[in-house]
Amino acid sequence: MTNTQPPDTPPAARRRPHVVILGGGFGGLYAARALRTASVDVTVIDRTNHHVFQPLLYQVATAVLAPTDITSPIRHLLRKQRNTVVLMAEVSAIDAARRVVMLAEGTEIAYDYLIVATGSRHSYFGHDAWERDAPGLKSIEDAREIRHRFLGAYERAELTEDATERAALMTFVIVGGGPTGVELAGIIPDVAKRGMVSDFRRIDTRDTRIILLEGGPRVLPTYPEELSAHAQRDLEQLGVEVRVNSLVTKVEPMGVCIGSERIEARTILWAAGNAASPLARSLGVPLDGAGRVIVQPDLSIPGHPELFVVGDLAVYPPQPNGRPVPGVAQGAMQGGRRAAQNIRQRIAGEETAPFVYMNKGDLATIGRYKAIGDLGYARITGRFAWWFWLLLHITYLAGFRNRVSVLLEWAYAYFTYRRGARLITKR
Amino acid sequence: MTNTQPPDTPPAARRRPHVVILGGGFGGLYAARALRTASVDVTVIDRTNHHVFQPLLYQVATAVLAPTDITSPIRHLLRKQRNTVVLMAEVSAIDAARRVVMLAEGTEIAYDYLIVATGSRHSYFGHDAWERDAPGLKSIEDAREIRHRFLGAYERAELTEDATERAALMTFVIVGGGPTGVELAGIIPDVAKRGMVSDFRRIDTRDTRIILLEGGPRVLPTYPEELSAHAQRDLEQLGVEVRVNSLVTKVEPMGVCIGSERIEARTILWAAGNAASPLARSLGVPLDGAGRVIVQPDLSIPGHPELFVVGDLAVYPPQPNGRPVPGVAQGAMQGGRRAAQNIRQRIAGEETAPFVYMNKGDLATIGRYKAIGDLGYARITGRFAWWFWLLLHITYLAGFRNRVSVLLEWAYAYFTYRRGARLITKR
Repeated sequence: MTNTQPPDTPPAARRRPHVVILGGGFGGLYAARALRTASVDVTVIDRTNHHVFQPLLYQVATAVLAPTDITSPIRHLLRKQRNTVVLMAEVSAIDAARRVVMLAEGTEIAYDYLIVATGSRHSYFGHDAWERDAPGLKSIEDAREIRHRFLGAYERAELTEDATERAALMTFVIVGGGPTGVELAGIIPDVAKRGMVSDFRRIDTRDTRIILLEGGPRVLPTYPEELSAHAQRDLEQLGVEVRVNSLVTKVEPMGVCIGSERIEARTILWAAGNAASPLARSLGVPLDGAGRVIVQPDLSIPGHPELFVVGDLAVYPPQPNGRPVPGVAQGAMQGGRRAAQNIRQRIAGEETAPFVYMNKGDLATIGRYKAIGDLGYARITGRFAWWFWLLLHITYLAGFRNRVSVLLEWAYAYFTYRRGARLITKR
Repeated sequence: MTNTQPPDTPPAARRRPHVVILGGGFGGLYAARALRTASVDVTVIDRTNHHVFQPLLYQVATAVLAPTDITSPIRHLLRKQRNTVVLMAEVSAIDAARRVVMLAEGTEIAYDYLIVATGSRHSYFGHDAWERDAPGLKSIEDAREIRHRFLGAYERAELTEDATERAALMTFVIVGGGPTGVELAGIIPDVAKRGMVSDFRRIDTRDTRIILLEGGPRVLPTYPEELSAHAQRDLEQLGVEVRVNSLVTKVEPMGVCIGSERIEARTILWAAGNAASPLARSLGVPLDGAGRVIVQPDLSIPGHPELFVVGDLAVYPPQPNGRPVPGVAQGAMQGGRRAAQNIRQRIAGEETAPFVYMNKGDLATIGRYKAIGDLGYARITGRFAWWFWLLLHITYLAGFRNRVSVLLEWAYAYFTYRRGARLITKR
């Protein structure tokens, strides 16, 4: 069954263009919102039922926050937008020539305009087998898996009689010194050294060893050098062993290798690379090495002015300042908004506009009370940067939930180390 | 490796008796607490890392509360009890003759006294294949599985074009009219009719059909008849179809059969029976039909005055009032305390005392704002009973977490329908 409108649209409304949005992350959500007052029918399709506030995912992975603290049903976020239907379904392919999206369960959904915002997964640079031993962090399921391994390691350390095994269980290796790796590495000491000390009898959780491995010459390589150095010092103060120029050559269940050196560790976390969602391949347009779609200046793809790609799935066009657009929430939000705006302009018979990224600043936390930030006009560090980070994140979290209640709930969970979050469940 | 003391106990302390407690539910937790000031070493072993506040599990299953709201790490609950070690491990068998507990990973733990409090799972009365299509509700994993099915049914209903399928997706059959069945059936209308209405476009969640099937002549069969009738009326007012004398003869992926009648439903929940934890069989003592251990008046087992069984795993001795001890949190807590007390008495060279159950009242909620209660001295119903229920549960929840914060957090989550809890994740 194929039609160009959502099936239940009343006949009188059937002349409105149908905009389909794939993905309910920052790109898709902000695109949908930008179409709220447009004279179109919008269908948002996601394989899950929930939007994840990804910048805080590392806190779920380390049991500081609970999965439910940073998720909200997509349909709930868009409930007041009467022109929008949300569907939970797996998209198997896009047929750009016929203008239909194919769902895994067999039906097709036709569109007049399409925004693809399905994001990325982690990349193991050709070593896909490493994923089993070194999970990455993109979804709530990933965060829960890492939380199981993180908490489970301490449980096994408390149980074992073997001192060597105990040390390996209490060693955490994080591969990749970008924002995710730095934030993960920075929060573990705090959880281990404050949250859990009095709970164990046979181990001292303060003995936790955290090793952050970065293949390049410095952590946070996309930040100014001065901030990278600052971040490394802050991490080292927290007890994290930061090793730059350390390219991982092998990942095993019991450790990692850097050339001929081997580090024994039972928990290895991957924060080293991204690969675009495989849906990109079905578009039949040029992709970059990571499988991302090289879009036109207005975010549409060559030959298909009605099809836009935004967020981590897109290689954004060159920016006036010559710098690449970072793969962060801001980039996806702004891309989503631009694509939606361009659809409105096209419907109105106007020219589309090129995407210009407004960098509102890059921020990364180091531990629970420090951060570094590059705001363009200023570079900030330490406690001040952390408060700035907190304010910004609450503002954006609040963007999709009740402002007052989210602040209270989140602050409560964050400052009390929500104990219930330390939950190990079977997979 | 076998020794009679926790391995890391300093030699000076090695003369203290070693009490091993299996299970960190209400029975095990309250037993451990009752040994806090005793001159013994305590080891609590559980297959999970967390205690679950089971009376609220049905609210996690229906996405009113989050898993983290009703769980806490067992080791955190016992952190201040310096004589106690908590281990997360699977126990494969008990060798009562040698006084050792065998862990699945191979090691053995020797004990001087043992308290077995491993509880029960659901029973399908010989139809184990039904479990796949009709999951029960005992653990956080169970609750998450039911939540997935419950929320997923609405997602699929919103997606389908087939009206018959849609109706079957929005039909929920609950098998078993005991407290769990009644509480599950009572809360679904509220979630469906208030929490989710505005989130869907193609379905009206108020069309949800809930059918509660009870094999016997009335719901809540262990309560006085008058309260059963009251509960049934309350449920019917909420729109639940209550069918008594309706014994399920077959469970299928697409529906249930009651004799020759068939009810089409895509979600079937099981709340009909319990079977004891299989560990009971390794004790080599008489069991009842459900596999539970028939204990002596002092909760020890025949021939082993050092081995106690409490909670849902035990058939408690006949009570002075002639009524059976219900399989609820109260029964487990009091049994755990009695077993611990009897161990202290035995160590002091005193006689053990028989277990006498103090019924503080039976309560079941019906929906979000009604309950029925049998307090012995009074029978309560409606709003008043609900407030009583709330007060009681907050008191006990508070018993294992910070009193003020848990009240705030829980009240917040409960009254705002914590939206994040509506989380569907892959298994």
